[in-house]
Amino acid sequence: IRLRGYGIEIGVLQTGPMNAITDVQGVKVGHTTLIQGDDIRTGVTAILPHSGNLFQEKVPAAIYIGNGFGKLAGYTQVKELGNIETPIVLTNTLSVPRAADALITYTLMQPENENVRSVNPIVGETNDGYLNDIRKRVVTEKDVLNAIAQASDGPVEEGNCGAGTGTSCFGYKGGIGTSSRVIPEKLGGYTVGVLVQTNFGGIFKLNGIPVAKELDNYSRMLKYGSDGSCMIVIITDAPLDSRNLERLAKRAMLGLGRTGGIASNGSGDYVIAISTAEENRIPYESDSPILYQNFLRNNNTTPLFLAAIEATEEAILNSLFAAEDMIGVDNHERKALPKEEILELIENYRMLGH
Amino acid sequence: IRLRGYGIEIGVLQTGPMNAITDVQGVKVGHTTLIQGDDIRTGVTAILPHSGNLFQEKVPAAIYIGNGFGKLAGYTQVKELGNIETPIVLTNTLSVPRAADALITYTLMQPENENVRSVNPIVGETNDGYLNDIRKRVVTEKDVLNAIAQASDGPVEEGNCGAGTGTSCFGYKGGIGTSSRVIPEKLGGYTVGVLVQTNFGGIFKLNGIPVAKELDNYSRMLKYGSDGSCMIVIITDAPLDSRNLERLAKRAMLGLGRTGGIASNGSGDYVIAISTAEENRIPYESDSPILYQNFLRNNNTTPLFLAAIEATEEAILNSLFAAEDMIGVDNHERKALPKEEILELIENYRMLGH
Amino acid sequence: IRLRGYGIEIGVLQTGPMNAITDVQGVKVGHTTLIQGDDIRTGVTAILPHSGNLFQEKVPAAIYIGNGFGKLAGYTQVKELGNIETPIVLTNTLSVPRAADALITYTLMQPENENVRSVNPIVGETNDGYLNDIRKRVVTEKDVLNAIAQASDGPVEEGNCGAGTGTSCFGYKGGIGTSSRVIPEKLGGYTVGVLVQTNFGGIFKLNGIPVAKELDNYSRMLKYGSDGSCMIVIITDAPLDSRNLERLAKRAMLGLGRTGGIASNGSGDYVIAISTAEENRIPYESDSPILYQNFLRNNNTTPLFLAAIEATEEAILNSLFAAEDMIGVDNHERKALPKEEILELIENYRMLGH
Amino acid sequence: IRLRGYGIEIGVLQTGPMNAITDVQGVKVGHTTLIQGDDIRTGVTAILPHSGNLFQEKVPAAIYIGNGFGKLAGYTQVKELGNIETPIVLTNTLSVPRAADALITYTLMQPENENVRSVNPIVGETNDGYLNDIRKRVVTEKDVLNAIAQASDGPVEEGNCGAGTGTSCFGYKGGIGTSSRVIPEKLGGYTVGVLVQTNFGGIFKLNGIPVAKELDNYSRMLKYGSDGSCMIVIITDAPLDSRNLERLAKRAMLGLGRTGGIASNGSGDYVIAISTAEENRIPYESDSPILYQNFLRNNNTTPLFLAAIEATEEAILNSLFAAEDMIGVDNHERKALPKEEILELIENYRMLGH
Repeated sequence: IRLRGYGIEIGVLQTGPMNAITDVQGVKVGHTTLIQGDDIRTGVTAILPHSGNLFQEKVPAAIYIGNGFGKLAGYTQVKELGNIETPIVLTNTLSVPRAADALITYTLMQPENENVRSVNPIVGETNDGYLNDIRKRVVTEKDVLNAIAQASDGPVEEGNCGAGTGTSCFGYKGGIGTSSRVIPEKLGGYTVGVLVQTNFGGIFKLNGIPVAKELDNYSRMLKYGSDGSCMIVIITDAPLDSRNLERLAKRAMLGLGRTGGIASNGSGDYVIAISTAEENRIPYESDSPILYQNFLRNNNTTPLFLAAIEATEEAILNSLFAAEDMIGVDNHERKALPKEEILELIENYRMLGH
Repeated sequence: IRLRGYGIEIGVLQTGPMNAITDVQGVKVGHTTLIQGDDIRTGVTAILPHSGNLFQEKVPAAIYIGNGFGKLAGYTQVKELGNIETPIVLTNTLSVPRAADALITYTLMQPENENVRSVNPIVGETNDGYLNDIRKRVVTEKDVLNAIAQASDGPVEEGNCGAGTGTSCFGYKGGIGTSSRVIPEKLGGYTVGVLVQTNFGGIFKLNGIPVAKELDNYSRMLKYGSDGSCMIVIITDAPLDSRNLERLAKRAMLGLGRTGGIASNGSGDYVIAISTAEENRIPYESDSPILYQNFLRNNNTTPLFLAAIEATEEAILNSLFAAEDMIGVDNHERKALPKEEILELIENYRMLGH
Repeated sequence: IRLRGYGIEIGVLQTGPMNAITDVQGVKVGHTTLIQGDDIRTGVTAILPHSGNLFQEKVPAAIYIGNGFGKLAGYTQVKELGNIETPIVLTNTLSVPRAADALITYTLMQPENENVRSVNPIVGETNDGYLNDIRKRVVTEKDVLNAIAQASDGPVEEGNCGAGTGTSCFGYKGGIGTSSRVIPEKLGGYTVGVLVQTNFGGIFKLNGIPVAKELDNYSRMLKYGSDGSCMIVIITDAPLDSRNLERLAKRAMLGLGRTGGIASNGSGDYVIAISTAEENRIPYESDSPILYQNFLRNNNTTPLFLAAIEATEEAILNSLFAAEDMIGVDNHERKALPKEEILELIENYRMLGH
Repeated sequence: IRLRGYGIEIGVLQTGPMNAITDVQGVKVGHTTLIQGDDIRTGVTAILPHSGNLFQEKVPAAIYIGNGFGKLAGYTQVKELGNIETPIVLTNTLSVPRAADALITYTLMQPENENVRSVNPIVGETNDGYLNDIRKRVVTEKDVLNAIAQASDGPVEEGNCGAGTGTSCFGYKGGIGTSSRVIPEKLGGYTVGVLVQTNFGGIFKLNGIPVAKELDNYSRMLKYGSDGSCMIVIITDAPLDSRNLERLAKRAMLGLGRTGGIASNGSGDYVIAISTAEENRIPYESDSPILYQNFLRNNNTTPLFLAAIEATEEAILNSLFAAEDMIGVDNHERKALPKEEILELIENYRMLGH
């Protein structure tokens, strides 16, 4: 049962049919989940903005750095050129280089890319070292290629899977979560989808209810280490250029803030935003020196901003609702969100139905 | 009665004695409130980080651009040099240049500054054009110098005063608000004070309660114009360098997000952060080429981040609780927050006392 | 006689017909020169990207901060929204607010702008305080409006005029300079025009010849104060979006570097870049939520980058060749470039004709 | 024979004893050069700011993005935290991930780092795909670890070695180059060392002499592909904080500009700047929440800026003077700089000795 299954509604906008990033036409998600022995709890999540050859048909994109204590690969070229040319891969902190290398392999071996000699792989990460023996770096090229190969549209698996297999959030078991919003037809009818890999701390709130305070479940000393982080991926079919995609990405942090996230010193919080609008694809090679593009005016971005905030908040909550108890390396344990206790709390707050 | 007078507590950290930016030792605030005839509803708020000659003893500082659709003066030099050398002045959008000019006058005429030929005035703004005939640009040099001259420590006037005289927030009357937090002694015992000029929109939440949704009081079309904006000023006695002050400033936007703010396209949202730690003052002239400074390590910033988030959220709410009904230009009217209705709502949500 | 009149050619690209920023169709430049008594040596230069109502028809733009120790007005909104909505005004450091205020006046009083309540004035500056009693702030609103009113296409006055009236460069008299480049038809045939206000230091080179070293005319102690700065304005008819305009702006600093400029600590070096391509104008209001735009692909920007570098280098040199001896406040004197001595040096270097 | 062996002096400041980045006390450089069969022409260069455990004793650092069309690893954390915690490794574009992975291995296996679970490897690159079969990705972990192990102080090998083995510059054979400057004792006596990996284009100038123009050796169509780039590493013993290190890094691009570089669209130009001042090392763990640091004041940075410009210009020229003819993949050939022709040209320009 996802969050909405309990009658809890986040925000004021409508969700898409699946309430998932895959509500954006053409988007696919795939996971490789690695649970091995007592100590390996990690994985890979791949997100494909479209099903074509991404290198040959790049997509407008931007990355916003909420807090840069992280190892995301690919930032500077996206900033400079305003586009992304590979799938997006999420994994654990110490596996970023191998995942990036796998994305190069993937790109070089695609048909039409025989002469490509420069690739900008995009890999995000959070640190699952509490449950996973991260120093072993078990993620292989094959794991990454599998996640891409298995990517599909349709509902997205959430919780302890893919890059969220071993993550923690607000002291509970975190993981992968997703959500979407569709803005009213009069405002363009666009869809905004979000996928998160949650591994951060703060003072947890559920739809405004101060759960952490009520359950007295937060660190008084606020000594968050370097093992935090949240990766947020936003995809929309709205025709935004890279400048407005960066603005959209920035809003996701407000959604994170609503869950009680504080972007602590050690939390590497990054937001990747992509537009899949077909008219704005960027061909690798072209006879024309000019790109004919149709971009939404600055004035019309606000509904999308709200959509990104709401979908981020809900995706984070979905990750927590989907995650399950896990024991990992050194017998470290993360409990799932105590849903019954929390639902009772919500009942007391009489917020069900709102 | 301020928010806490109703038993409503925001966050988990302690406030300072006055729950105001002036809880940070040495900080002074002054207002010039301009209410004239039917059409002038504007003013000036001045914030002094310390009472000495700010040009001769600069303070480490940073400005974070939450959303840059605004006219703040002074950004680029603060970014480059990491310090601020004048009081901070807030006013209305079209009066920024005259306020900046007044700050130059102020600086040039201070003793010791006889040879100063370069000044970087810091002026923030929001657009009070709904209640104020902003095109008249009535703010004068004298109004600015008065705000500085009247600046005092002690409690800070909130609501319809100074630069908040004519502002609007979430469809209600906005204004000036302030709040503070003191972090536990074991974490340094530092104070973080925040002052806001609220003039923005979104889907209002009060301590997590979805007031706008419950009262059905928000724009379905999300067509926020260019008249939004929120100015946020953070001052702390914690010894932060400009890099960590920028990180601190960034967190204030999470506090704004918690009130339901969405940083709409037209909202110029800026956060100015300053450290008043005496050991880190930056002398204009010095015999030594070296600055001996004591800065907090990156690892120890998190409690301050939380403090900034909580104090920003509460300062915004304080501005709304303090503001009163106002009629202005063209008979435009802004109602104060319907406090009784809202307190009843809160009662229903049983959140009083939390 | 301008630089090319002596047979000195900078770079490899062709200049436009006038070798001036006004070679870009529709661009106009106007100066107000203020030379009063013994102590006033300052002025205003206005640059109009097109002759329509700039607020109603904004132009794609970007500002690159070479070194942010300066007081330029308008940066953050240009960064956020990617456009400029007023003429560009250059003046002295302490007159920026009054010039910005005048641009607001100008914008508010234009037909069609009766309801405008938010304007982002763009004002750049350098510090002419060595020759000008800058603390007097003599520049008035009328001076700014005059510069705009007198703006014309055709050749641009250079040297001791407008905002360059009292400036210094490499220890000589600086001022206003301009230059342009036209890229080959096969590469698009676009024009890139540059105008500079030169007031900076370093180790002067003329077309590669180490003039400062040969003439032993540079500061051994490199103690440049806060009075430096160079303002650079680039306008092109190439259809660049704001992202690529920022990249173009960045290249101008390479041109400054070629003259021996070093962007010293106290030098506020800013580059404003604008595209006047008519198909990409941004209407203030529009029935359509979509902008249909034609932008040059990233791959096709390089020739424009070279053009910006060459035109910046030559514009700086033109400012020095045009400037004349000046005595100002406190009997301070700046000598013009010793042209005969330098031409002899060039002759020795046998570089004439190259 | 290096450039100065021909009597050519760049700039006005003194070089260090070796005119190399290793003139900065404690800095070590190591190369792994990979020349295999007909098609492999690549390698690795490692730069160690000090010989201790860099993770345990981090160094203040900044990275400036001259042009972000590149794949440098590690940018965002350096920007956020202001320090570097691994050696710097340079290699080819498609080998960045494997080099980054090797740096993680290196860091994890160092004594004292047994519990480290988060590492930010710094890897720069240029694209040697013209001479090297870059798609083969032959660089191994061992190659990287060897470069680090072999790193030594003393003179630095230049030209066709390490990461410069297969690079091209201005149409000639490029490679590794280095240079240094020592600023006058009265200004602090600090050393600034630069190392470059040159692989970029433009219109070549040697100490101001327009070599490319004279020899008619440049592309009329300016169609530089994505295979350009220049990596620049600056190390200084001056006590600069990360903010002023970023400013220092920015100046290196002016030095690149003086050689005729234009930062073409496809050129990934990055500048990494580090301070080795011992008093400002940043311990990984510490009992004190405060860092006691001694930083140079903003006002005293200018001589260092000039030093960075001059050393970058000379390091680039040194790379060209040291590089030798090379034939690589697909029988592609790069000729070394035609030194005799050029020296004759210089003779004609009578610039020897200046």
